[in-house]
Amino acid sequence: MIENKFPGKDITSEDLKTKFPLCNKKNKNHKTVINIDGLKIGANKNIVLFAGPNMVESYKLMTSVSKELLKNKLIFVRGGAFKPLTFPYRSKHYYETREKGLEFLAYIRKKYKCKIITEIMESKYLDKIGDIVDIIQIGARNMQNYPFLIDVAKTNKPIMLKRHFGASLRDLLGAAEYILNEGNKNLMLCERGIVAPHTHSAVSRYLLDITAIVALKEITHLPVISDPSHACFNSRWVKSLSLASTAAGADGIMIEIHPDPKNAKVDNLQTLNYKQFRDLLKSLKKIAKTLNKNVI
Amino acid sequence: MIENKFPGKDITSEDLKTKFPLCNKKNKNHKTVINIDGLKIGANKNIVLFAGPNMVESYKLMTSVSKELLKNKLIFVRGGAFKPLTFPYRSKHYYETREKGLEFLAYIRKKYKCKIITEIMESKYLDKIGDIVDIIQIGARNMQNYPFLIDVAKTNKPIMLKRHFGASLRDLLGAAEYILNEGNKNLMLCERGIVAPHTHSAVSRYLLDITAIVALKEITHLPVISDPSHACFNSRWVKSLSLASTAAGADGIMIEIHPDPKNAKVDNLQTLNYKQFRDLLKSLKKIAKTLNKNVI
Amino acid sequence: MIENKFPGKDITSEDLKTKFPLCNKKNKNHKTVINIDGLKIGANKNIVLFAGPNMVESYKLMTSVSKELLKNKLIFVRGGAFKPLTFPYRSKHYYETREKGLEFLAYIRKKYKCKIITEIMESKYLDKIGDIVDIIQIGARNMQNYPFLIDVAKTNKPIMLKRHFGASLRDLLGAAEYILNEGNKNLMLCERGIVAPHTHSAVSRYLLDITAIVALKEITHLPVISDPSHACFNSRWVKSLSLASTAAGADGIMIEIHPDPKNAKVDNLQTLNYKQFRDLLKSLKKIAKTLNKNVI
Amino acid sequence: MIENKFPGKDITSEDLKTKFPLCNKKNKNHKTVINIDGLKIGANKNIVLFAGPNMVESYKLMTSVSKELLKNKLIFVRGGAFKPLTFPYRSKHYYETREKGLEFLAYIRKKYKCKIITEIMESKYLDKIGDIVDIIQIGARNMQNYPFLIDVAKTNKPIMLKRHFGASLRDLLGAAEYILNEGNKNLMLCERGIVAPHTHSAVSRYLLDITAIVALKEITHLPVISDPSHACFNSRWVKSLSLASTAAGADGIMIEIHPDPKNAKVDNLQTLNYKQFRDLLKSLKKIAKTLNKNVI
Repeated sequence: MIENKFPGKDITSEDLKTKFPLCNKKNKNHKTVINIDGLKIGANKNIVLFAGPNMVESYKLMTSVSKELLKNKLIFVRGGAFKPLTFPYRSKHYYETREKGLEFLAYIRKKYKCKIITEIMESKYLDKIGDIVDIIQIGARNMQNYPFLIDVAKTNKPIMLKRHFGASLRDLLGAAEYILNEGNKNLMLCERGIVAPHTHSAVSRYLLDITAIVALKEITHLPVISDPSHACFNSRWVKSLSLASTAAGADGIMIEIHPDPKNAKVDNLQTLNYKQFRDLLKSLKKIAKTLNKNVI
Repeated sequence: MIENKFPGKDITSEDLKTKFPLCNKKNKNHKTVINIDGLKIGANKNIVLFAGPNMVESYKLMTSVSKELLKNKLIFVRGGAFKPLTFPYRSKHYYETREKGLEFLAYIRKKYKCKIITEIMESKYLDKIGDIVDIIQIGARNMQNYPFLIDVAKTNKPIMLKRHFGASLRDLLGAAEYILNEGNKNLMLCERGIVAPHTHSAVSRYLLDITAIVALKEITHLPVISDPSHACFNSRWVKSLSLASTAAGADGIMIEIHPDPKNAKVDNLQTLNYKQFRDLLKSLKKIAKTLNKNVI
Repeated sequence: MIENKFPGKDITSEDLKTKFPLCNKKNKNHKTVINIDGLKIGANKNIVLFAGPNMVESYKLMTSVSKELLKNKLIFVRGGAFKPLTFPYRSKHYYETREKGLEFLAYIRKKYKCKIITEIMESKYLDKIGDIVDIIQIGARNMQNYPFLIDVAKTNKPIMLKRHFGASLRDLLGAAEYILNEGNKNLMLCERGIVAPHTHSAVSRYLLDITAIVALKEITHLPVISDPSHACFNSRWVKSLSLASTAAGADGIMIEIHPDPKNAKVDNLQTLNYKQFRDLLKSLKKIAKTLNKNVI
Repeated sequence: MIENKFPGKDITSEDLKTKFPLCNKKNKNHKTVINIDGLKIGANKNIVLFAGPNMVESYKLMTSVSKELLKNKLIFVRGGAFKPLTFPYRSKHYYETREKGLEFLAYIRKKYKCKIITEIMESKYLDKIGDIVDIIQIGARNMQNYPFLIDVAKTNKPIMLKRHFGASLRDLLGAAEYILNEGNKNLMLCERGIVAPHTHSAVSRYLLDITAIVALKEITHLPVISDPSHACFNSRWVKSLSLASTAAGADGIMIEIHPDPKNAKVDNLQTLNYKQFRDLLKSLKKIAKTLNKNVI
């Protein structure tokens, strides 16, 4: 009487075959490895660390961040030139450098040989970023913008797809299938916090769903990245959540760093300064070592 | 020590001025009325009823639905030609008529003078629908696809913007500002269910947030529509939730009807047959009357 | 591979027989009616209105409230003598009259023949309330305090069991079975808001789960009451949510009223003054009439 | 206009003084250490591991578990004699040994010198457990049963208070204050999963709120334990979530083990066999070492 058979949010064994034919894990050792000039993401041996400012503000900032990463033998730089704005009105908190920002990224990529991961939000920019971006980030708000997913997939660039804060794993993996179905196999997923009761408080902005990391590593062969900075919006907690994500099995961590977070143009609350960054890195390497992994 | 001041999901009085300058209610009687050939949505006197099949399957189906509505002195037809698919793989459950479907809608609009509300998912279709669509529906998954919102706004067509199932009211109203900021004032909002604990069960698919209807009517001057069909995915509950939404202050209801729901191509679980539809309409008119409103 | 068969929160047809043998509805017309001196709760013909202050502060307050209800031909008085306190520290906001409060209730029950519904939180008070209380309210926090449920059931008094804000319907109905299993059939359920994303904001404290009212009326024969005051904590919204609950099928409404809410000792934000109360009652009667029901 | 000042779920600096005077951290190094015969819980140097079956089924089972733990140089045994049952009907899944179970615990405590942590659900058992129990566990469902909290506190035994799956940290810490306010300082908290969207699926039963562990370690001086077994209900994920909790800063882990989980009387889905247990322990020790901690 009361049972429905609606298309639910559960993932059944049957779904794995019919709904997730491309992202599901065929056997225990089935893992996608994304090779970026010899740097392997998703490999059993590596934890990738994407670090950088929320917004690529200037040549000066990006030079500072690049040098800091290189000093620590890291090479992947994250940084946004475009930023989805909840409101159409620009303010101090909703500052974007846009095309100018892409130039800053191109500069450090050329000068310091950094590898760049950055969010692209519109198809029209996709043909302008060939020499600028190594990994295209699809933001949470675009996770279900399927025509856009297809356009990004067609670039054949490596992609990081972020989970929408309201999306189930079923929704996320369905979006992943759109990308894989275009023949682009260089896909990684990113957990960045979900809406949940009690998150909208002093405690945290979203709730980092670390169980999802464990579940995704079991269900799919794709690398899984954790973004604790955007989940908790609290620089004091980024280290602990990064270590926890790594211990849970994440293939990488994306964090925000800035030489002077208090004066960062956006999202300064969750951004680490260099001292905090090095402290995190030191602990991250220790955890990685217990898992027989290296931080790259 | 533990307090953060991140951009939260709360809506403060200050936000009303700086973040929601266009959608916030300036005084108690400030209400947007959308006039579609003399039919007024958002007017104190009317409850608008959008009814029709989930998918516009054929001329035959749309003729049947149009006649059923006209027989009941209703004129607004809902029906999807495009449908966001969680997975890229077509199946019985994920059937779309696309351009062909737009023809079916054009046909009943011309023949029966029906008013059409339908979802458009890509900007490229916007210049093809001038003679087909009276109200453009922006689906939940596109709520935060801001470039698309702007493109839709520029058509100057009336718009119904659906709340994403993971979005706060702050997120929803921010998206509304994008549309209003383009000068398109004919905007209505739609609550269609949110993710919440205990919804993913026999009980319902999403949780229809009727409190949000009450809140939106207080905060904003925009008309608010309720879509109980997609929220609960359960045809037995659509009537009660429609009545509840109306009693809570909704300016309209969007439901799915079909002459033979069991054989509907998609989403047949939440679809009402004509008998159930007339029963709902009868009760809806009674509730509307207590509120001094007419069902249009 | 990924499927588990844990005892979930779903309610299956099988569960109805084995887990909910006493509360499940045996046929469409199977309804429990609770008869309190001829006043029938759960009867198709009635909406019961429980109104009164959050805390029974004084003889004066309870006299005022009783007179206001009688003037409006109502007789059921709600009012707390005991109040679960989130913290052990008493303050203006966490004021209890306890045994003294029970005396105030006994007084109006005798003098004005009011019917009393009040929360009891400890078994030791159960044998002191025979002449004071007509309906024992079990609060949300005690919903899963099973030994206490059994003790209350044994009094053979009518009971209103409130849903915990984190409980599924399965949890709630399991608790109901504890009471019914003791042979006490005079049980009604109460929805009073659940934890959900986006509730912890200006918008509302908990989210009133009106879909749960619809679901419970389908699954169970027990009367279902709605408590919008505690859900939204916002006096401006209590009317709309009361009407919505009634339209959804609730058998009754529990609200907080006070002659001077600003000076109420507790929970003054959601409390209606008498003018607001009469306005709500007027509209409630109209909605009730469309459902062929009377407000008692 | 739209702002309310209801008693929210936020924790403000002011709250720390007035609502959480006993549990809040007075300075960075302020930490409660619970000393059980020289074994220190909450000490910077230790991770405590509570392991054992869900239900203490027999002498034989408890002997087996005790020997397994001792073999691994562990001494804390968890095991339930009482188990809160969602329904009043006993079945294979809802089996309790009750007083008999307490005897099994007393036996291994005497014979193997194990330290016992077990849930007590009613005050009447509190004076019978002096020689049986080292730590009294208060279950999630009793978290807000304040009279019971006070009774347990008065035993002066060490206590582990579990967070209700619907409770905010504010609710949890309020409950902690009830215990501390009775003068019992030997209190630890336990995170065991919360209700959240998308948890009621193949993915997991509750969502282990690892962010809460980080938050609690910042706000309070009390030791924090993580119970991944009850959160995820999935033995394959217990190891990863245990490591993640430890990396996040938990002072201990509570897990379920059984020599033959398939034949465990209750909750066999989340229970580890001895091989899985040793594998978890090996990894846990490695993570602990990176944090300069020992597993006890």
